[in-house]
Amino acid sequence: MNNSKTMDAQPCPVARSLDVIGDRWSLLVVRDAFDGVRRFSDFQRSLGAARNILSDRLRRLVDAGILAVQPAANGSAYQAYVLTEQGQALFPIVVALRQWGEQHLFAEGERHAELIEKRTGRPLHFMAPRAADGRVVSPDETEVRKLS
Amino acid sequence: MNNSKTMDAQPCPVARSLDVIGDRWSLLVVRDAFDGVRRFSDFQRSLGAARNILSDRLRRLVDAGILAVQPAANGSAYQAYVLTEQGQALFPIVVALRQWGEQHLFAEGERHAELIEKRTGRPLHFMAPRAADGRVVSPDETEVRKLS
Repeated sequence: MNNSKTMDAQPCPVARSLDVIGDRWSLLVVRDAFDGVRRFSDFQRSLGAARNILSDRLRRLVDAGILAVQPAANGSAYQAYVLTEQGQALFPIVVALRQWGEQHLFAEGERHAELIEKRTGRPLHFMAPRAADGRVVSPDETEVRKLS
Repeated sequence: MNNSKTMDAQPCPVARSLDVIGDRWSLLVVRDAFDGVRRFSDFQRSLGAARNILSDRLRRLVDAGILAVQPAANGSAYQAYVLTEQGQALFPIVVALRQWGEQHLFAEGERHAELIEKRTGRPLHFMAPRAADGRVVSPDETEVRKLS
């Protein structure tokens, strides 16, 4: 990615995250991985990405420790790409992207896929940033304390 | 962005969100806007982005209804870019990116900028996806219900 600053020197956690996953295809791969997609050909079918783009993004995600390559569970020759623990920890980011999209990018009454809790079949709660005491906070109630 | 599928037809809210903001520079602009950056030259200084890239991303964010252009508050000739209500609603996404970066991209003891609640000076609570009843859910307790 064409970053002009060296991210390793970036004290901002948002910038460091974006250096690793701040790209549409990477995040779509991660979304698909959460949905259980594991094989190259299945990612390709789901995303409609060019082969070289998908290869590149999978390799970057493996290099970043977000996906791990495993032999396929059924003993076939296919490799499987699975989320590592660090990759699983991207769940809040994917949920936040989903919830913003649901609220702002669909027309009233337009249907969309929904993320539900399996046990109850109910959609997840809206995920809002909260203060240490658990109260929901708005952006203007917060500030970034930079490194001095 | 080089999407091969038309996003307007995408039933997945994650894909639609990424079509609008799934790009490292766009999300860094949004991060800066939350931090109070408003002028072109200040975004440029903060991001180290090339002028044409920054212009392009600001225009896209305005077109998408995430930023609005306003005359500068002090009456000068400079335009100010401010988050709209839809842009303010990106707060959970930026917080999720921040918290993942904090937890996974810094060495033990390495310092980073922190997002705090102004009133208390304390860092925000870790933001986790929750079921409708408020319980924290892991990815494997959830599934996407696709449109039939």
